[in-house]
Amino acid sequence: MSEKLIPDLEMQFQLYDVLEADKLCQFEKFEEHSKDTFSAMLGTAEKIATDLFLPHNHIADKDEPTFDGQKVSMIPEVKMAYDAFCEAGFIAGRYSFEDGGMQLPEVLMTAASAYFMAANPSSTAYPFLTAAAANVINHFASSELKETFMPRMLSGEFTGTMALTEPHAGSSLADITTTATKHEDGNYRLKGSKLYISGGEHELSSNIVHLVLAKIPGGPAGVKGISLFVVPKFRLDDKGEILNRNDVQLAGLIHKLGYRGTTSTALTFGENDDCHGYLVGEEHHGLRYMFMMMNEARIGVGFGAAMIGYRGYQYSLAYAKERTQGRSAEHSDPSKPSPIVLHGDVKRMLLAQKAYTEGGMALCLYGSHLIDRINVCEDKEEKESLQELLDLLTPVFKAWPSEFGPKANDLGIQVLGGSGYTREYYAEQFWRDNRLNPIHEGTNGIQALDLSFRKLWQKNGLGLKILQREIEKDLVAMSGPKTGKLVKEFLPYLQKLHDILTHVAGTLQNDKQATLLANAQALMSVFSQIVVTWIWLRQSHVAEQKLAGDNVTEQETAFYEGKLKAAAYFVSWELPTIERDIKILKQDNDVCSTMQADWF
Amino acid sequence: MSEKLIPDLEMQFQLYDVLEADKLCQFEKFEEHSKDTFSAMLGTAEKIATDLFLPHNHIADKDEPTFDGQKVSMIPEVKMAYDAFCEAGFIAGRYSFEDGGMQLPEVLMTAASAYFMAANPSSTAYPFLTAAAANVINHFASSELKETFMPRMLSGEFTGTMALTEPHAGSSLADITTTATKHEDGNYRLKGSKLYISGGEHELSSNIVHLVLAKIPGGPAGVKGISLFVVPKFRLDDKGEILNRNDVQLAGLIHKLGYRGTTSTALTFGENDDCHGYLVGEEHHGLRYMFMMMNEARIGVGFGAAMIGYRGYQYSLAYAKERTQGRSAEHSDPSKPSPIVLHGDVKRMLLAQKAYTEGGMALCLYGSHLIDRINVCEDKEEKESLQELLDLLTPVFKAWPSEFGPKANDLGIQVLGGSGYTREYYAEQFWRDNRLNPIHEGTNGIQALDLSFRKLWQKNGLGLKILQREIEKDLVAMSGPKTGKLVKEFLPYLQKLHDILTHVAGTLQNDKQATLLANAQALMSVFSQIVVTWIWLRQSHVAEQKLAGDNVTEQETAFYEGKLKAAAYFVSWELPTIERDIKILKQDNDVCSTMQADWF
Repeated sequence: MSEKLIPDLEMQFQLYDVLEADKLCQFEKFEEHSKDTFSAMLGTAEKIATDLFLPHNHIADKDEPTFDGQKVSMIPEVKMAYDAFCEAGFIAGRYSFEDGGMQLPEVLMTAASAYFMAANPSSTAYPFLTAAAANVINHFASSELKETFMPRMLSGEFTGTMALTEPHAGSSLADITTTATKHEDGNYRLKGSKLYISGGEHELSSNIVHLVLAKIPGGPAGVKGISLFVVPKFRLDDKGEILNRNDVQLAGLIHKLGYRGTTSTALTFGENDDCHGYLVGEEHHGLRYMFMMMNEARIGVGFGAAMIGYRGYQYSLAYAKERTQGRSAEHSDPSKPSPIVLHGDVKRMLLAQKAYTEGGMALCLYGSHLIDRINVCEDKEEKESLQELLDLLTPVFKAWPSEFGPKANDLGIQVLGGSGYTREYYAEQFWRDNRLNPIHEGTNGIQALDLSFRKLWQKNGLGLKILQREIEKDLVAMSGPKTGKLVKEFLPYLQKLHDILTHVAGTLQNDKQATLLANAQALMSVFSQIVVTWIWLRQSHVAEQKLAGDNVTEQETAFYEGKLKAAAYFVSWELPTIERDIKILKQDNDVCSTMQADWF
Repeated sequence: MSEKLIPDLEMQFQLYDVLEADKLCQFEKFEEHSKDTFSAMLGTAEKIATDLFLPHNHIADKDEPTFDGQKVSMIPEVKMAYDAFCEAGFIAGRYSFEDGGMQLPEVLMTAASAYFMAANPSSTAYPFLTAAAANVINHFASSELKETFMPRMLSGEFTGTMALTEPHAGSSLADITTTATKHEDGNYRLKGSKLYISGGEHELSSNIVHLVLAKIPGGPAGVKGISLFVVPKFRLDDKGEILNRNDVQLAGLIHKLGYRGTTSTALTFGENDDCHGYLVGEEHHGLRYMFMMMNEARIGVGFGAAMIGYRGYQYSLAYAKERTQGRSAEHSDPSKPSPIVLHGDVKRMLLAQKAYTEGGMALCLYGSHLIDRINVCEDKEEKESLQELLDLLTPVFKAWPSEFGPKANDLGIQVLGGSGYTREYYAEQFWRDNRLNPIHEGTNGIQALDLSFRKLWQKNGLGLKILQREIEKDLVAMSGPKTGKLVKEFLPYLQKLHDILTHVAGTLQNDKQATLLANAQALMSVFSQIVVTWIWLRQSHVAEQKLAGDNVTEQETAFYEGKLKAAAYFVSWELPTIERDIKILKQDNDVCSTMQADWF
């Protein structure tokens, strides 16, 4: 096995060589930071992830949380890992020094999360959900609610959840039926059921702060009538001391395919008509608040999918270097078998994993860095432009790694062969864990609709224009011959994207919208593969420049050569797959849209 | 849920409308059969599968076999199902009436297996492995061995296994180290370890007959020195009574990702130097014997993958018809949500599953029927031609459904959304079970090598010529406008296949063989997608003819329309994916072959 969760060279390359994230320290907000403080923080993350999260990843899968009707129990390692995470200050990492945070850029927070996601995605979920819930409260709740809950969430004393889904309403939040009725005490009483609430019950923290979407009776129908509430497991008195149990009950734990260390819960609110909830912001604006935090959450899901994929890649790579079988073309001593890493088809499977997972990692780090660029931008017009770019790319940040991370884990199993199918090896757990990602935080189908019907066109396609600007700026700078060759292969596809978007804009104007509803995945594929090719060209360019530099060590040379290869793999093997999708879109192909339910 | 494992219309269509399998009854071997006897047999299979195999599919997954150091235990339902299968005579189904069999064509045996594989692939493995082992003994063992073991295996009193893999030798059997030393009693003593032996230990039968590959010391190196032995768990006396325990020990059970109801074992032979084995056929010819049975076994794996996929398709279809969510384009009453089957993207996912699984089913039934055509053929030249066609297509029969069946199960999970990720629903089990199929019976990578370096070229490409003949014969007959439109889209790809094979033949002659080793999967993809398109055009043609006939019921109309749609889906969405692979092959793309191990 590889000794490190993520080789230092990889992290340095992504953060500093490609993104130049250290330049963020030039801005006032981050001026107290430097590469050194970033490195120290990442070193802490790596150490905690390696020492406290990694060792129980497999144990928590085999010995998942249980509920005896009274209490949820889980292996003690989870709490030890959680406490260490909180003590190191990671939940508050992005908050200002005054708020007790580390005032870190988003891209560094994401980079730190890489170690935790690679080590143990299930245990990582508890503090991550808490950070996400705190983030919503921070942005939209009253100062009173903030004061009461924020500090204790940022310290990890309280954990948080996002309670959106109901048994009959997952993708379609318009149909939720949980109600919140105003009470004479000025607060609300909630009543309803929520499903698949991650971290909805456990003993890791002294309180659990649920952020609950509910409808206030008499409000507008559909999504415009959804409000957001803080609903703690325990109510607090005026001094913030725990007063008594709120009327939130655990109806049961969901038994999942993977991600088993994270409790997934069915919760009942107000069974005894005594579930107190505190309104966040204004009535009926709840969905908007939730979705304004969605960009970060979706980058987080995509990045997690890339990292579970990456761990599987590293795992199968280590296996392929040790396991011998058959005789490879380049290793023809017939008396002994070759390490399978030398077999052509195994190289193909490893290169694909490398391309998918390092591509997904670079994609989401680009996304997080984009948030930082927005945050530090002082030019209003530019800020708005970058915000549009972020909005446009968010479905890609979520869906592409969620599709290709699991593909990497599938190939990881295949590299291990028979061993990959046994639970004695970890490849199968990575594969099961990652299968969640195409489903939650908006299924990949929903992401394709979001892209095809909304994001591409909003503000007159401003996001797309900015994307073109960003891509062109990069392409112009790519001077090396190897990258140049890839750029030459890329350019016609960029033109094809332009053409197909013009065509699709027409489709949306005529009566063929139903075809696009059924073919949105094809458009997502064209768009996202082109985006990820660009992301790979950026890596190829930097690697080629580095290779041409002075004092390149043998290890660095191998690393950069690998980057060039993975970029070439992506351009040869992945980019051309969109020809099919372009054809489907150009035809306004109606095979799927005209299928009838009773013909199946 | 769908009430039937496989709708009768589907089975009728595949067997009689497309394959005209009933015409086999015109041949002497099958003259005592008719559609009626076939139907009766299929009815029995369906009933046993539904009543005794289906109900414990999920239970055996949750409560898998255990080994306490002495004995393997499993839920009692497995033995009840096994006994019913044996009592109905299915193990001996393909054997002659004199041998106590039903003298059934292979294609009917495969059709019968559809019900069992869809219902419960794990419990089905025990009798299937027994039939496969009996098949080897029947073809290659001495009459003495046959008399001793065959009848008791065909009745199910004894079960059988195939013991090939060793801990260090899976894909590369040349490297096995189990030895078989001739003893003065005329038999052999075996010594060695085998791994992943399915059904290697259990209490379902009074004896287990292992077919073991081993090397006789002093024999030729590599695969030419492998011999085949019958190694029973219990030795028999002259009267065939159980005498004593042979020296075969269960070292342990393997804990698998899926297929958990089937014991997968690590076996030790000759730990006490007293493991008796009986040579099958001649010394050093063992691998040949095993591989002559491989065509059937590989069709079996492919067909099983298609059927697990099919069950997942039916399961997700039933869910999609009941589950409501959001508002579909064609169902715009805003007051209530639509069944998700009406959403375009869900239709796409269901159509893909239909195309993959009914395509895989039709593909493998074609393969089994081809074996029947070979068996009844009296023209020596034609027989040889058909045998070459079978050899050529066998890697496709195995690998294509093993790749696309699991894809169907993956889409099945996605259709279920959050529910699909829970163990409260079955979608995730189908997905885990099917993940075995790309791995065993020769990984899909091995199948791609077999196709690319051997099958396409053997006997001067005779198999390919016969394939062309078969395809052209079909295409000429396709007169309907809908199918005709698909044929028109298909023809250029057929030409591309021809061109690329000419190109690859050149690659094999020059120094670019290493590129083909790494790109074999691309060639497999081009070849197999074209074969499966043809298989879908055959279905489309028949469906279109049927639709144009008289007295078509409403249900039949819907069924045939569905077939036309799935064929159209395949031609639009799946066939064009090979453009990428054609490009890779044409370039002799060396991205993967020139990757270095230390660059990863």
